[in-house]
Amino acid sequence: MKIGIIGLGRMGAGIARRLMRAGHEAVVFDRDEKAMATLAADGAVAASGLDDLRAKLGTPGIYWVMLPAGDPTEQTVAAIGAFCGTGDIVIDGGNSFYKDDIRRAKTLAEKGALYVDVGTSGGVWGLERGFCMMVGGDKAAVDHIDPILAALAPGIGTIPRTPGRIEENEDPRAEQGYIHAGPAGAGHFVKMVHNGIEYGLMQAYAEGFDILKGKASDKLPEDERFDLNLTDIAEVWRRGSVISSWLLDLTAIGLAKDQDLAQFTGSVADSGEGQWTIDAAMEEKVPANVLTAALFARYRSRVDHTFGDKLLSAMRFGFGGHVEMPQ
Amino acid sequence: MKIGIIGLGRMGAGIARRLMRAGHEAVVFDRDEKAMATLAADGAVAASGLDDLRAKLGTPGIYWVMLPAGDPTEQTVAAIGAFCGTGDIVIDGGNSFYKDDIRRAKTLAEKGALYVDVGTSGGVWGLERGFCMMVGGDKAAVDHIDPILAALAPGIGTIPRTPGRIEENEDPRAEQGYIHAGPAGAGHFVKMVHNGIEYGLMQAYAEGFDILKGKASDKLPEDERFDLNLTDIAEVWRRGSVISSWLLDLTAIGLAKDQDLAQFTGSVADSGEGQWTIDAAMEEKVPANVLTAALFARYRSRVDHTFGDKLLSAMRFGFGGHVEMPQ
Repeated sequence: MKIGIIGLGRMGAGIARRLMRAGHEAVVFDRDEKAMATLAADGAVAASGLDDLRAKLGTPGIYWVMLPAGDPTEQTVAAIGAFCGTGDIVIDGGNSFYKDDIRRAKTLAEKGALYVDVGTSGGVWGLERGFCMMVGGDKAAVDHIDPILAALAPGIGTIPRTPGRIEENEDPRAEQGYIHAGPAGAGHFVKMVHNGIEYGLMQAYAEGFDILKGKASDKLPEDERFDLNLTDIAEVWRRGSVISSWLLDLTAIGLAKDQDLAQFTGSVADSGEGQWTIDAAMEEKVPANVLTAALFARYRSRVDHTFGDKLLSAMRFGFGGHVEMPQ
Repeated sequence: MKIGIIGLGRMGAGIARRLMRAGHEAVVFDRDEKAMATLAADGAVAASGLDDLRAKLGTPGIYWVMLPAGDPTEQTVAAIGAFCGTGDIVIDGGNSFYKDDIRRAKTLAEKGALYVDVGTSGGVWGLERGFCMMVGGDKAAVDHIDPILAALAPGIGTIPRTPGRIEENEDPRAEQGYIHAGPAGAGHFVKMVHNGIEYGLMQAYAEGFDILKGKASDKLPEDERFDLNLTDIAEVWRRGSVISSWLLDLTAIGLAKDQDLAQFTGSVADSGEGQWTIDAAMEEKVPANVLTAALFARYRSRVDHTFGDKLLSAMRFGFGGHVEMPQ
């Protein structure tokens, strides 16, 4: 198939390459001419802008938007929406908020065009491992782009089958690495919760390794201190333990490079999905203490002391005359 | 090597079998004669009690205790301690509290015997997959039982190497699936933190799936509701996503059997290590909000309403005359 790809960052470029490897044609556009030249050298058709992309793609066309969530995606979808017509399919493969998908799908539908949201996991490893995709949108559109999704997914046989899985009740594409999760927005909703879970998993490992590292502390009785090799622990847990995971594999790689992780400050960003997951939990009235604590741990990581910390000291001073001492 | 195994539950029986498959001799004892007969039929030597086990094992002997943590393990280690002497090695492969290991190692050392604690992960899958082991104790004892540990571990090549891992700085046995973590107690300490992390990981998935399930709630605007297929979502996340893990594999198996998980009440037990992990965090003054929240979620799962819930209602009634209505 012929597909237009807008945005050639690490994910977009990986998607274009994996599609071309599978025999699809990619017409690409990025404001960064270097990124575009690299892809063109690998066989993609470069476009000078959205109008040129449309001309080179033909009508109706398939537009895969792979840009940062927020304004860049919103503006690009709107620009495509301005010229698109019956049969055009606009795919947002980024990390958009799912309520934006619902709105965009309605707007595009007024012009006869179809909108598909594809929550895409796999990061920079996706080109080789394949992308895990959670797809929302009209069945007709999702079925039409199936060859594209199948080419991007890891495919059958890369991961062992789940015992007891009854195919007739479920989506057989799940075993290839993608699902049609529901109507517009459902793909990004599932991807959002995926990222919320990711925050919780990461923080669970982080706290565990903090406790292992703290076991060498001179605050402890001497015969209860252990100077543990965190690199070996991460490595051994990868092998037959209950907590083996891909995130643990990445942890082992990081610790093997430098057990002290000296290159990192400890200030941790978040990209929105963690917060939206908590928003969803609140809308549904579903408790999510661990996911919330994991998100708040990131906020806390970004400041030396909170104003609240100082307030605690002020109260301690107030009722007991306590002056904080270095610990 | 010849090894005595006390306790033939699922883990102990699996250990005996995996050792015999590797050519080791197992002398076994369990109070359950049926469990012992089954193992004897598979080639183990059955003993009628600890004294008989000692006679059939010879001196010095290697005793692997694989019993529930707490009294059963404590009493058995004490009983072996009463007759053991120079060169005997007592291994606790269960989930003992690591401070008990430190104490037991000191007691046994007075008689010239050696104590090794082996935190063992792998559950009922260990017989086939191999056991992941975190070992604490004197180097001489750990080196002596190395052939046993090597036979129980998954072994080289079962899991891909960690890129960038520098063997000369680390324990090469980690790549086979076991490590000598430190002195007595260090093995069970690392296993304890492993289980603490496990609670956090499990709760992160649990909350995420709760949010996915809640998205069909009629509390939400109709065009924002999704009736999501949780079985397919677990399945697709196994394939190339950032949150793929062995626990997710087990989640997918459970959901494939029954998406509603109707056979479970929702009351969740905990086995001690989660709590000890939080104890350790408090001793070290290391924050562990997610691991603590995961443990508390299990406590909360075991009651319909807490007394605290009623206290909230009493206060709401007090300041506003509010009467709780069914939600």
